[in-house]
Amino acid sequence: MSTKFTPAEAADILIETARGFYAKRWMEGTSGNLSIRIRSDEMDAPLRYLITASGHDKGALTANDFVLVGEGGQVLEPAGAKSSAETLLHEAIYQLHEEATAVYHVHTLAATYLSMHAVEPEGVLTFSDLEMIKGLGFDTHEVAIRLPAIENNQDMILLSQEVLRRLEPFVPGFILKGHGVYTWGRTPAEAKRHVEIWEFLFQYRMMAWVTAVNPQANLLLNRM
Amino acid sequence: MSTKFTPAEAADILIETARGFYAKRWMEGTSGNLSIRIRSDEMDAPLRYLITASGHDKGALTANDFVLVGEGGQVLEPAGAKSSAETLLHEAIYQLHEEATAVYHVHTLAATYLSMHAVEPEGVLTFSDLEMIKGLGFDTHEVAIRLPAIENNQDMILLSQEVLRRLEPFVPGFILKGHGVYTWGRTPAEAKRHVEIWEFLFQYRMMAWVTAVNPQANLLLNRM
Amino acid sequence: MSTKFTPAEAADILIETARGFYAKRWMEGTSGNLSIRIRSDEMDAPLRYLITASGHDKGALTANDFVLVGEGGQVLEPAGAKSSAETLLHEAIYQLHEEATAVYHVHTLAATYLSMHAVEPEGVLTFSDLEMIKGLGFDTHEVAIRLPAIENNQDMILLSQEVLRRLEPFVPGFILKGHGVYTWGRTPAEAKRHVEIWEFLFQYRMMAWVTAVNPQANLLLNRM
Amino acid sequence: MSTKFTPAEAADILIETARGFYAKRWMEGTSGNLSIRIRSDEMDAPLRYLITASGHDKGALTANDFVLVGEGGQVLEPAGAKSSAETLLHEAIYQLHEEATAVYHVHTLAATYLSMHAVEPEGVLTFSDLEMIKGLGFDTHEVAIRLPAIENNQDMILLSQEVLRRLEPFVPGFILKGHGVYTWGRTPAEAKRHVEIWEFLFQYRMMAWVTAVNPQANLLLNRM
Repeated sequence: MSTKFTPAEAADILIETARGFYAKRWMEGTSGNLSIRIRSDEMDAPLRYLITASGHDKGALTANDFVLVGEGGQVLEPAGAKSSAETLLHEAIYQLHEEATAVYHVHTLAATYLSMHAVEPEGVLTFSDLEMIKGLGFDTHEVAIRLPAIENNQDMILLSQEVLRRLEPFVPGFILKGHGVYTWGRTPAEAKRHVEIWEFLFQYRMMAWVTAVNPQANLLLNRM
Repeated sequence: MSTKFTPAEAADILIETARGFYAKRWMEGTSGNLSIRIRSDEMDAPLRYLITASGHDKGALTANDFVLVGEGGQVLEPAGAKSSAETLLHEAIYQLHEEATAVYHVHTLAATYLSMHAVEPEGVLTFSDLEMIKGLGFDTHEVAIRLPAIENNQDMILLSQEVLRRLEPFVPGFILKGHGVYTWGRTPAEAKRHVEIWEFLFQYRMMAWVTAVNPQANLLLNRM
Repeated sequence: MSTKFTPAEAADILIETARGFYAKRWMEGTSGNLSIRIRSDEMDAPLRYLITASGHDKGALTANDFVLVGEGGQVLEPAGAKSSAETLLHEAIYQLHEEATAVYHVHTLAATYLSMHAVEPEGVLTFSDLEMIKGLGFDTHEVAIRLPAIENNQDMILLSQEVLRRLEPFVPGFILKGHGVYTWGRTPAEAKRHVEIWEFLFQYRMMAWVTAVNPQANLLLNRM
Repeated sequence: MSTKFTPAEAADILIETARGFYAKRWMEGTSGNLSIRIRSDEMDAPLRYLITASGHDKGALTANDFVLVGEGGQVLEPAGAKSSAETLLHEAIYQLHEEATAVYHVHTLAATYLSMHAVEPEGVLTFSDLEMIKGLGFDTHEVAIRLPAIENNQDMILLSQEVLRRLEPFVPGFILKGHGVYTWGRTPAEAKRHVEIWEFLFQYRMMAWVTAVNPQANLLLNRM
């Protein structure tokens, strides 16, 4: 459960993780971004994290395709590089959750679809009753978790403020409408697990959505 | 058709099998667990089996990610390790079926969905008429097999008792609602084959379920 | 466009082809079988072909997992081996089509589903209008091809007779109900291409089938 | 952002790109074709591009499976080779868009289905509101882009004229009915990104199409 990585170690982990997510088609068209916090031994050291640079094929990242970022989205390395606009969403999570070591944003079909068509009136997607929910950090499947669904906005300052206002306690994630899911973890492995679990839940919901078009399906099953 | 493995041999098989199942997205978010019985040359040797430890990425298991377990879920190695709660379900199968050498539990989307929405009034899912059924150990496709669907329960002692009570003769498997399928085989290869066949049957049923929403689909086909 | 292979060359091709089909989930649970004809320089040499033995994991075949078969399904090598019952279907194709060098049978979900739910009254599945059809050996997409769908039968002699009676001229394939598709080609590469094209057409038909459940879908599209 | 490649470099990129697209099942049955422009240092050098030869397995291309083509579809190398009929569509794009360095045509299920069933009365498919749209070269998701859908035709001269007549400004792509999508980019990486984004949009539209069969689905979701 290591939470302390050099930038080079973080890049290695993110290269491998992005390759895996890309293979699952969760980072198509250079979409999404992944980051790992770089912790310091000094007290009160300012926030630093390594994040994927924009516009690179997530299936074939190299050590040059990352940016080291500090507070306010300031690029620390490489000199002269520009950080992604979405960097501010990663910063918002790291500032709120001191224990978060990795923030992963992927852009899956099911998340995109549900965020546009299946958001409940309270502005959330609710999941319950499935064993898989336990992998998000709950002790039982007998719980209803609410994932905030937030209107997409190209103004990242307004968007990150809205995200912080809307996060649900104990729920490691939010979804941007038409855009994709953000999640995080105390370790990179935990963040990866959360990505997989959210996507499982999204695909499950898609199945339920598709079959919900006719409530008589339940009656028909036994006649097939 | 080997059925006798050292713990190291069993770990090698399970690492490879888990990697394959993970690649198919059947063990997302560290879900599922796989075990192989460790047979002894001694008469009346007590039950021992090697099982995946909880919480590890099933796509990247190493030899350290297993636990050797004896009767009552007791961890024999490594010293001080704690076994997964679901170990008792593996034990129940090994005690009931002396010929079972491997017990595999995966957590697929289709299994999860069907277990929540398509269980028949008798508490089973029934499959028939498909050639693929023969791979579960039947001589013909002209048979109806019933897969027990059992209410999920975080109390593993109660759950394993219920499982034993509900197993169907000749049917190598059961499904936990909202959770996934368990199956087994006389060899690891047979257990793997059973996993693949159950999942094929589940996906087939999902197709039938989705299209069953309108009984006129049969009539419409010829007009497409 | 080689059509002449030694048994060892044929095994290499089939190992690689089966691994690819398995990765696509078209040979789950050890299902399906693949063969390549072994041509001889002698005039009027009797039929010989190398075929996958039953019961082996198609994702991990080895050179030992094949049988050399002659007329009447007789096993020529290895001595004492028993050929698969379905060998007679391969023989029927080789006898009818002298130019066929490979016969491939895979067991896909879409083929299985369509064979059980979407067969037209004439006992065929019809495909038309798609560019992909040209890959089956037609010069244009403006053609309707009919794939025979044949009742499954565990008696392989009766089944192979029925297959020969039902084959459509110029259409390289037939489907067994609840079982899967057979196709062939003048070269192994052509047989592989035919498998891929049939499966593309099957998946296309599945999409049409799912959306056909409500004829108003056409009207609704523009309001989405 | 390199745009200048030797034929050997172009072949290496296309081999790798085709392997990736094939793995995603976007070039089944030897379908589709990919090309890269070969730029010259000379002023007013005539058009040259390297394109995949017809009929080869796109998952296993070798350096011999390409043709160097000049204006009017003339094969420059290898001597005596015949270019694919669809070469003229690549030429039309290269002539119209001087900045285009790669033209990619893939043949996906979703594109094929939508082109046959979901074309809007104006002869286009419209996409809007999704963040992914930005990857096609737009600054915001708040835009509606129109992808021309063009009747398939085995006469490639007529077809390429129709394509040029129908292209939409700023939209890097068109779809042939029953056939698949063409797209391009200033670099091979950009063309690959466009392929992935079109396919994401197509799959999203398929989801919407399937669930649109019943407008009450929105109401039902909250009762699931």
